[in-house]
Amino acid sequence: MKREKGLLIVLSGPSGVGKGTVCGALREQDTDIKYSVSATTRSPREGEVDGVNYFFKSKEEFERMIREGEMLEHAKYVNNYYGTPRTYVEEMINKGHDVILEIEVQGALQVKESFPEGVFIFLMPPSLHELRNRIEGRGTETGDLIDSRMTVAKEEIDLMDNYDYVVENDKVELAVERIKSIVTAENCKKDRLIHQYKQLAEE
Amino acid sequence: MKREKGLLIVLSGPSGVGKGTVCGALREQDTDIKYSVSATTRSPREGEVDGVNYFFKSKEEFERMIREGEMLEHAKYVNNYYGTPRTYVEEMINKGHDVILEIEVQGALQVKESFPEGVFIFLMPPSLHELRNRIEGRGTETGDLIDSRMTVAKEEIDLMDNYDYVVENDKVELAVERIKSIVTAENCKKDRLIHQYKQLAEE
Repeated sequence: MKREKGLLIVLSGPSGVGKGTVCGALREQDTDIKYSVSATTRSPREGEVDGVNYFFKSKEEFERMIREGEMLEHAKYVNNYYGTPRTYVEEMINKGHDVILEIEVQGALQVKESFPEGVFIFLMPPSLHELRNRIEGRGTETGDLIDSRMTVAKEEIDLMDNYDYVVENDKVELAVERIKSIVTAENCKKDRLIHQYKQLAEE
Repeated sequence: MKREKGLLIVLSGPSGVGKGTVCGALREQDTDIKYSVSATTRSPREGEVDGVNYFFKSKEEFERMIREGEMLEHAKYVNNYYGTPRTYVEEMINKGHDVILEIEVQGALQVKESFPEGVFIFLMPPSLHELRNRIEGRGTETGDLIDSRMTVAKEEIDLMDNYDYVVENDKVELAVERIKSIVTAENCKKDRLIHQYKQLAEE
């Protein structure tokens, strides 16, 4: 059944977890998922194409877009703005395409405010997984190292709580398969389908 | 991360939709899913093995099991009882295995009462999908036939509303892939995982 609306999939997670690598690997596969293009005020690097790698914007234009609610999320790093223009994402979704955003945790929380119906995936570092084994005494780490790992783990768990799914990035191929499964499953969710069927039966 | 509990997956849908075929095809694949064995009071047919095809029970024993809450669901067809013994399902789930039940719609509703955390999948006949095309005028069916299809469709939509997922059985292989994706996605659900991580971080 043709969907009225596509899914907004937000792939996020702690810095360094491998969001870019996983998203790149997903992109190489033959799926119908569309990839959002970010906007930035930084200068294009050699070979970067406007509208492909980024939408390159002036500072004034970017700030106008923020003011007028045209950014789904944005952040400033090293004096440059980075953000997700709302228009492309909404156009794709309204055409029935699934769109994926690969963004930082703070950005994901901003997106959740305007798109609570999005599918929020937390990419988890395998360290958190390994924690259990280490704590359970098979490892040989000292108390201090375990303590510092625990602090990081607790921060990650707090972030995780805002998401719908947790995908472990133990192997890129496995993480990609899990994300593809989540997209398939979300597209089978009764709550996303029944409205259409009901409408159909009433016509 | 090793799960504390497996999933209870309930595959159901209207009579004749192909539950048995889809479940059989899933079973031929190499997954870790366990298959629940039903109990019945009917006599074993040639080649049927107790504990493999069915648990064969006397009427008295079956009725005692119902009375003592040992059946997750049961129904009577043509003077014989059919049902799902609770023990096997609970043992597997408590060991961390995912278990699938392939049952009729009334049985699925019974299971939902005692296992609301189960994953309820409604296998949908492709006729409901095709309905849209027909109604939209591409078909050549008469008004009466469309009316009777609409009645059936409405009944199916009402049933569907009790489930978490709707899987179209357009092709058996596709339905199997969707079910596998749902199981993978459910195992990535934050709500099913975060409790363990929190516990781990507190230890």
